[in-house]
Amino acid sequence: MAATDDSLRKSLADKQAAVDAQGNAVRALKAAGAPKPDIDAAIETLNALKLEKTSIERSLIGGSDTREAFRQAVVNTLERRLFYIPSFKIYRGVAGLFDYGPPGCAVKSNVLSFWRQHFVLEENMLEVDCPCVTPEVVLKASGHVDKFTDLMVKDEKTGTCYRADHLLKDFCNEKLQRDLALSSDKVSELKHVLATLDDLSAEELGAKIKEYEIVAPETKNALSDPYPFNLMFQTSIGPSGLSPGFMRPETAQGIFVNFKDLYYYNGNKLPFAAAQIGQAFRNEISPRQGLLRVREFTLAEIEHFVDPQDKSHPKYAEVADLEFLMFPREQQMSAQSAKRIPLRDAVSKGIVNNETLGYFIGRVYLFLTRLGIDKERLRFRQHLANEMAHYAADCWDAEIECSYGWIECVGIADRSAYDLRAHTDKSGVALVAQEKFSEPKEVEKLVITPVKKELGLAFKGNQRMVVEALEAMPEKEALDMKAALESKGEVEFEVCTLGKNVTIKKNMVTIQKEIKKEHQRVFTPSVIEPSFGIGRIIYCLFEHTFYTRPSKAGDEQLNVFRFPPLVAPIKCTVFPLVQNQKYEEVAKLISKSLTAAGISHKIDTTGTSIGKRYARTDELGVPFAITVDSTSSVTIRERDSKDQVRVDVEKAAIVVKEVTDGHRTWEDVWSTFPHHSSTSADD
Amino acid sequence: MAATDDSLRKSLADKQAAVDAQGNAVRALKAAGAPKPDIDAAIETLNALKLEKTSIERSLIGGSDTREAFRQAVVNTLERRLFYIPSFKIYRGVAGLFDYGPPGCAVKSNVLSFWRQHFVLEENMLEVDCPCVTPEVVLKASGHVDKFTDLMVKDEKTGTCYRADHLLKDFCNEKLQRDLALSSDKVSELKHVLATLDDLSAEELGAKIKEYEIVAPETKNALSDPYPFNLMFQTSIGPSGLSPGFMRPETAQGIFVNFKDLYYYNGNKLPFAAAQIGQAFRNEISPRQGLLRVREFTLAEIEHFVDPQDKSHPKYAEVADLEFLMFPREQQMSAQSAKRIPLRDAVSKGIVNNETLGYFIGRVYLFLTRLGIDKERLRFRQHLANEMAHYAADCWDAEIECSYGWIECVGIADRSAYDLRAHTDKSGVALVAQEKFSEPKEVEKLVITPVKKELGLAFKGNQRMVVEALEAMPEKEALDMKAALESKGEVEFEVCTLGKNVTIKKNMVTIQKEIKKEHQRVFTPSVIEPSFGIGRIIYCLFEHTFYTRPSKAGDEQLNVFRFPPLVAPIKCTVFPLVQNQKYEEVAKLISKSLTAAGISHKIDTTGTSIGKRYARTDELGVPFAITVDSTSSVTIRERDSKDQVRVDVEKAAIVVKEVTDGHRTWEDVWSTFPHHSSTSADD
Repeated sequence: MAATDDSLRKSLADKQAAVDAQGNAVRALKAAGAPKPDIDAAIETLNALKLEKTSIERSLIGGSDTREAFRQAVVNTLERRLFYIPSFKIYRGVAGLFDYGPPGCAVKSNVLSFWRQHFVLEENMLEVDCPCVTPEVVLKASGHVDKFTDLMVKDEKTGTCYRADHLLKDFCNEKLQRDLALSSDKVSELKHVLATLDDLSAEELGAKIKEYEIVAPETKNALSDPYPFNLMFQTSIGPSGLSPGFMRPETAQGIFVNFKDLYYYNGNKLPFAAAQIGQAFRNEISPRQGLLRVREFTLAEIEHFVDPQDKSHPKYAEVADLEFLMFPREQQMSAQSAKRIPLRDAVSKGIVNNETLGYFIGRVYLFLTRLGIDKERLRFRQHLANEMAHYAADCWDAEIECSYGWIECVGIADRSAYDLRAHTDKSGVALVAQEKFSEPKEVEKLVITPVKKELGLAFKGNQRMVVEALEAMPEKEALDMKAALESKGEVEFEVCTLGKNVTIKKNMVTIQKEIKKEHQRVFTPSVIEPSFGIGRIIYCLFEHTFYTRPSKAGDEQLNVFRFPPLVAPIKCTVFPLVQNQKYEEVAKLISKSLTAAGISHKIDTTGTSIGKRYARTDELGVPFAITVDSTSSVTIRERDSKDQVRVDVEKAAIVVKEVTDGHRTWEDVWSTFPHHSSTSADD
Repeated sequence: MAATDDSLRKSLADKQAAVDAQGNAVRALKAAGAPKPDIDAAIETLNALKLEKTSIERSLIGGSDTREAFRQAVVNTLERRLFYIPSFKIYRGVAGLFDYGPPGCAVKSNVLSFWRQHFVLEENMLEVDCPCVTPEVVLKASGHVDKFTDLMVKDEKTGTCYRADHLLKDFCNEKLQRDLALSSDKVSELKHVLATLDDLSAEELGAKIKEYEIVAPETKNALSDPYPFNLMFQTSIGPSGLSPGFMRPETAQGIFVNFKDLYYYNGNKLPFAAAQIGQAFRNEISPRQGLLRVREFTLAEIEHFVDPQDKSHPKYAEVADLEFLMFPREQQMSAQSAKRIPLRDAVSKGIVNNETLGYFIGRVYLFLTRLGIDKERLRFRQHLANEMAHYAADCWDAEIECSYGWIECVGIADRSAYDLRAHTDKSGVALVAQEKFSEPKEVEKLVITPVKKELGLAFKGNQRMVVEALEAMPEKEALDMKAALESKGEVEFEVCTLGKNVTIKKNMVTIQKEIKKEHQRVFTPSVIEPSFGIGRIIYCLFEHTFYTRPSKAGDEQLNVFRFPPLVAPIKCTVFPLVQNQKYEEVAKLISKSLTAAGISHKIDTTGTSIGKRYARTDELGVPFAITVDSTSSVTIRERDSKDQVRVDVEKAAIVVKEVTDGHRTWEDVWSTFPHHSSTSADD
């Protein structure tokens, strides 16, 4: 949509230039005392140009209005049919908290089942389930206690809090969308601010807010300087008040701290993946974007542990032929747009860092599109260098386009050995893997041997600290010391634990290279992490599957969710055509067969017209409807085509099972059974 | 086990009396100068009696030791095979927090799927999914902010916290188990304390702790007086620090606050049930009982809303014929034990309050026993009057016996209209249902009509407050006012919103009974709540399915979990008999068929002996093992019988699918296929 905006803005500038030119022409004609018909003709042209310009302006503004209207239609349907409910609504709710009502809950449960099937079972992953309550030490090690913050500003009078970057972003977007007189320099400047928003320091953000004279949106009061706010919900574990804890901001840490046990469980073999589905929490400063930015959400995360020297993947070939929209770093930097790239090329050309990362990108693509996400509104965007953590080897986001723009729904990152190292350091437990050599290898190693007797004589009670400091020297420092001792006989050496320098003499330590036999290599595995925001995926799915169509009478628009059977909250509805005991008994019979076949369904025996009942079921995205209009055969209707076939009562449940399980297509059903054209005033 | 303890204690008392009597006899013989053989014989008898006494003492102490040893064996296996992992183990863990490792996670996921199938789908319940973070107002209304507390005592020197009732309970149990010289009066007293533990006030608990001189278990320091500690994890929502929130202690409140929407979703019809599966939190003072008492756990809760005037259930007949251990209030009060009662009798005799409650008790029985809970160690215990909340109509716990005693795993309560009323009062939103009358009914109603003109003249700007206060008068007060106005012409009337009394005159209000036609009845539904502690059920399941058997060589005990296929973490393992490419290819082929059939399984291609591999798989509770020992046919082994049949390669996956899905019994497989007797040194 950004591209469309750009081209509209270009036309607008062209048109403005034409208007200006024509205006000048009119003025010139008048000044020259040209004949009236000539002047009138020139004015008419001018007016026509002005009208065209207004029309472009309308489109430019209207684009976002249309998106707003579409979103409103989706959200209204979702809330009215209880896909979602603002949590604690009777108490006026809490921003950023939503309930899944019955159909939403069913969709979520279907998405999670499929996730488990597609990733955990298919790849034999080790699924774990860890608590949300997490002690401080774990999140201190992971960096969340220090760095999981957003910059906040306060309304200086009322104390209301805002995210500083959001206010700046809103300001820029508003300007770009509504201020049509912006110079192209100003447009570039604002676009640059938007592009670098995530990089701005507290000081830089504060400076921009001052420069643009941004004030509190509701009160127009002045704003404080930006300062960091930690986004974790804090709590206290146990009654003492001495054990701070947090509600986890991600599920990943629960997996990392268990690496040692999981590696053992996997027979001490790499690669393997662990997975976890669970709640995560983020105490947003002021949640916006409705269902996309919430304070509690379900994450599904995979941590795939690999040998950093071998990031190939045995099943890579199964996805290598896929081709889809990718948006590599280079294209973003040179202001190009995303383009279709065969995954095989992206990996072989090194655009995607390694095979395993590529494998997961491909699997994520299959997962999302099978759920019903539109291929054309899904792209894989590579993180820019400034977006990635310093330790990350590469990172791609699966972004889905919806009315809010391109939304990050899955992050697929090669986090190198960062997390395992951080927990090794903090806990003192080595989270490492071993590669046993088939034959022992001879390795040249630098060996530092402190001479304890001499050190003891020289340093008495401080001996141990000096010994430890010597042994802990990095190779480079040790080689320097060796050289210094050989040339000068002694050297000054800083012992951190003593807080001072000591003099090391030649007889106090031997430093030399030795050839050692090694039987194994010990290393910290790299981790490749696909992390799924389940709620965001579901919301985008709702937008991608929603459409409206006129009712048969043409007097109203009916809402439909085009859910694939895989995610549809209910697979089938059963309607007796009229309220009548015989038909209701047939309906109950079919219901029993559907239950036995494990097909979730609903009977609707209300006396409402069949058309209204179809509309009701379409709005829940139910793919099939069985209408009982005789005791021997029934009709099965497909939601999107509204086509109906006639099937024997005994076969109805089986046919529905086959199409919902994907063992048979609707086209096949359509060509097998007699067609039924509805004579009732339905759809 | 309590019964066994009692009878042993009785024997011990008898034996002690016999020893005492014989001791007296010996002393009497000696005093009387009886002949030595007589004295010797008497002493021999005395010694024999003493030996018998010692043996009884050993049994009495041994009962609990055996339970401890059994539990240790189960827990060791669970931890070694990663069913559970103490959370954040590398940081020395946090009491009361556990992870489910891969097999535990699979068992949990199977239990939850079956729960959803057995309750939600089977009964067309409305499943919802609400956040864990809950604002204070909701939990204030539910009573949790004020009453969800445990009494705590502190070590006066170290500040370590303990649950006061636990210390008292431990003291009593320890005394009863270890102090064999207790008088029967003392035994009764201690048993009485144990029985009434839940009723004791802070003062009473404190008094008992003083009386028994109970001190801090580790330090033997004195303890503080007991005081209440709220068990909810507290946090703060948003950045302001002004919105306190809690991690929900149960999932039920999320359903109650949504009653209005859910009732509408159900077509404004009763009865209906809503259900929710999710995490709940309880900040235990000092968690004990390992996996049974934890700080974060998964609850599965059902709130079944009914008309309080009609608690029948349409499907009650389907469970009425069940018969199982029930422990009604009366039996508990008269110190009898639980007994088998047909559910139909319990309901018809009014032991169980109503049909709907009875229906759920029956469904819970079916759920638990199908999971593999031992029928003989499952009982439904009715709450005593003092255990129930004042508003509850009736309450039954499904208790499962394990090494910790009888553990409450499911609570099934008729909570009447309490919760909906509490939220109606607090939120001002009427959470009610309507029953439309087929014909309007005539009802006599008291109608209060303020005369606004007169009130306006008299009270000017305060008119509205007076009008509202008059309209809000309860019937009794209005009738008193009517009488007073008629006799005295005026009356003093307190207007709370004005904070003062006003004088109401006869011309300012009319109060009279009128006959009104009513078209519907408006009422607050009752709620029947089955609430499942999923973690507790799973732990008891582990104990009930665990057993050991000797290895073939008889040199060690092998562990087995007797999981039904429904809950087994993996349904099948595939072993190539020896490491050999041909066999491994067959194994892969079978694995593919198993994946296609949706059967979770694992291939074990390690070179370990087949016996060891069977032992490994038994310890994970895998019900079936396919061993590839040729390229045309394979063997299928059933875990508990260790019987093996020989099946064609192509049929292997189908047979396993049939038995794991429950469409075929192992007995049937056993009688259909040729038997295979293992010749390898396996089991």
